Amino acid sequence: MKEVNVGIIGIGTVGTGVLKILKDKKDKIASETGIRINVEQACDIDPAQKEKVISAGVRSFTTSAEDVIMNPRVEIVVELIGNLEPAFTFIKKALENEKSVITANKEVLSQKGEELFEVAEEKKVDLFFEASVGGGIPIIRPLKEMLIGNSFSLVMGIVNGTTNYILTRMEEEKLKFDEALKIAKEKGYAEPDPRADIEGDDAASKIAILSSIAFNSRVVKSQVYKEGISGVSPQDIEYAKEFGCCIRLLAYSKKADGRIFTFVRPALIRLDHPLASVKGVYNAIFVEGDSCGQLMFYGEGAGSLAAGSSVVGDIVQAARNIVQNSRGSIGCTCIENYPVASVDELESKYYILLSALDKPGVLAKIAGCFGEAQVSIASVIQKESFGDKADIVFMTHKTFEKNLRQAINLIKKCDVVDIVKSIFMVVEE
Amino acid sequence: MKEVNVGIIGIGTVGTGVLKILKDKKDKIASETGIRINVEQACDIDPAQKEKVISAGVRSFTTSAEDVIMNPRVEIVVELIGNLEPAFTFIKKALENEKSVITANKEVLSQKGEELFEVAEEKKVDLFFEASVGGGIPIIRPLKEMLIGNSFSLVMGIVNGTTNYILTRMEEEKLKFDEALKIAKEKGYAEPDPRADIEGDDAASKIAILSSIAFNSRVVKSQVYKEGISGVSPQDIEYAKEFGCCIRLLAYSKKADGRIFTFVRPALIRLDHPLASVKGVYNAIFVEGDSCGQLMFYGEGAGSLAAGSSVVGDIVQAARNIVQNSRGSIGCTCIENYPVASVDELESKYYILLSALDKPGVLAKIAGCFGEAQVSIASVIQKESFGDKADIVFMTHKTFEKNLRQAINLIKKCDVVDIVKSIFMVVEE
Repeated sequence: MKEVNVGIIGIGTVGTGVLKILKDKKDKIASETGIRINVEQACDIDPAQKEKVISAGVRSFTTSAEDVIMNPRVEIVVELIGNLEPAFTFIKKALENEKSVITANKEVLSQKGEELFEVAEEKKVDLFFEASVGGGIPIIRPLKEMLIGNSFSLVMGIVNGTTNYILTRMEEEKLKFDEALKIAKEKGYAEPDPRADIEGDDAASKIAILSSIAFNSRVVKSQVYKEGISGVSPQDIEYAKEFGCCIRLLAYSKKADGRIFTFVRPALIRLDHPLASVKGVYNAIFVEGDSCGQLMFYGEGAGSLAAGSSVVGDIVQAARNIVQNSRGSIGCTCIENYPVASVDELESKYYILLSALDKPGVLAKIAGCFGEAQVSIASVIQKESFGDKADIVFMTHKTFEKNLRQAINLIKKCDVVDIVKSIFMVVEE
Repeated sequence: MKEVNVGIIGIGTVGTGVLKILKDKKDKIASETGIRINVEQACDIDPAQKEKVISAGVRSFTTSAEDVIMNPRVEIVVELIGNLEPAFTFIKKALENEKSVITANKEVLSQKGEELFEVAEEKKVDLFFEASVGGGIPIIRPLKEMLIGNSFSLVMGIVNGTTNYILTRMEEEKLKFDEALKIAKEKGYAEPDPRADIEGDDAASKIAILSSIAFNSRVVKSQVYKEGISGVSPQDIEYAKEFGCCIRLLAYSKKADGRIFTFVRPALIRLDHPLASVKGVYNAIFVEGDSCGQLMFYGEGAGSLAAGSSVVGDIVQAARNIVQNSRGSIGCTCIENYPVASVDELESKYYILLSALDKPGVLAKIAGCFGEAQVSIASVIQKESFGDKADIVFMTHKTFEKNLRQAINLIKKCDVVDIVKSIFMVVEE
């Protein structure tokens, strides 16, 4: 029986899950792989974590990450503290010190992945990050390894459980955004400061990582256009339903004409699309490859044991590679260099909800604005009246987003229009 | 750049897809892995395939599988002829001759997997079979490798595209089974002799393979209880919908109390379950692990390029292992030995549709039969009358299947009952 020693930095939610799984499944993993995974050392800034760590069978505890990184007995460093710094520095040091590194850190990967992969390659060690996207869902290694015989044209998904929970509650109970957010906070599905989730920042990191792998071309987080969900109203959800759609915060990346279109935004998804069945805090990633066709990977996008499951899968792979002397064999796969296009250049269908005066000739005026911007209308539904005003919903045919924006600018200046309430893209894939 | 030479036996639907992908993606694979995969030799019993094979860049063609197996330049043998024999003999010989083997053969794996794994282990070579279940869906390696930190309690899915296409058409267009089967044949989704699909034989092989991997305990095809879909009527589908369910041919395996319950049968699935969104020829596998929670893998369950995508993923992994001198490191993972329980011992809810005389006292008599067999009724709906008879639908509470069968025997003897039309389990997971 071979032995491989692991060091873990950060004993928070995910770290605790990893410790539990490594303890509970130690014999199972050993029987299946011939390798015993020992946790040699665990580190947390909170010294009170020592007791929990030691009772989980870890040999030693420290409050200094440096101790783990420099520990000559540690062969795999597992970084689970999150956020860019000091995580980035720890990971880089560990790689430089010839440790394989497992991380669940979407920020580091989506912002500084390239720099880390260069070090990993130079030192011939592994850098695995399955838990950085989709929690317990196996998606990174399937895309990088099993689906290598594919060129992907599309990767999109529901990769933020908080916003999906909020939108699902709004949908099921006709709640307003603020009401659903309040419930999400009470249930622990939203942070006290929920901005990173509801503004799409979390999902932007994840789609940057997925895009880089699916398209074999580096996409960094800052290149991802984003819009949050706070502007989604119960009316939008109801009207979308009348068009056979639901509204989800969609992380989307498409390769077309040698360019990558990537964004996070609320979007209308057909109810018969597999992504529409993803409810509550669940996540799913949908891809389209030229060999495999359409695939979807569905599961728990967060949580101690779910993310822990992915981290442990990575640890076992890194341990195999140590035992087999094959570290570093699966490195960065960004062998292409596609530019990221402006979202202005995106061609899509759009949903627009606006409030206008409820009188003859108004529709013609608004339609004129769309026409002037070369935006073709697929359907119009006039909804409820409120006094002298009425809600009007437009669905466009496929149009460039820049043309849509021009139309919206014209419409906003139009004296019969009260307010443009919502503009969402409509997913066609 | 390392080179690895592959030999392919069987240039049918999947073989043609594999050749195309290996040709189209040769440079991509080489750039990402540092390995050039060459097809050294291809074999088919039809000599007319030679031209296609040579134009796909294969170095030589033969009509004798033996040539490929004994070819000293071939390092990986890819078996794609299907059915038990002679495929089993070819695979075994190739393993004995120290070749790694990739196969898409569900029959061989589900009936003779153990014998092959023993040879592979002895010879320290790889035996991979991603395409044997779920076509283009990555499921075998995620379960065996990435999700190693889990004990699974459930694996179930829609793993036969033909029957799912038929049931979906029946559902969407209120067709009878025969009508939908006819369309499936016309569209090429059903074989001229469709028995293996519609009687659940194909799905039984696949759930045997999935169970063996998920539960780390060998399940062979003959242990899988099966019922086909020819007894599903448009009425059943309509009544199921009234209970918020659809009907699908479900391949199911559950581990409970140290035993495995495994079967293929039509079952009612709640419409809000992720599996209910799997329409047409698509497949999906749903698992429940103690760390990852619920996961679902969705995609194309068959087809030249989809299955080819999985085969190529396996070839690349086997090639990496050759280059890294780590062949045989992922072998059989059946480290447990759980018995397969009789379906009589299954505890489930059931749907029963019967026709009975439409007169007072009938329901009491039938309810008495259920009661005598200790089966508790959750709800009863009397449906349309036909002359002096009426359809009655029963949903039971959780009961042992043996008790249900006893109740059905009593009901069949009951003079007020015309005929028991359908009995389906209701999935609770």
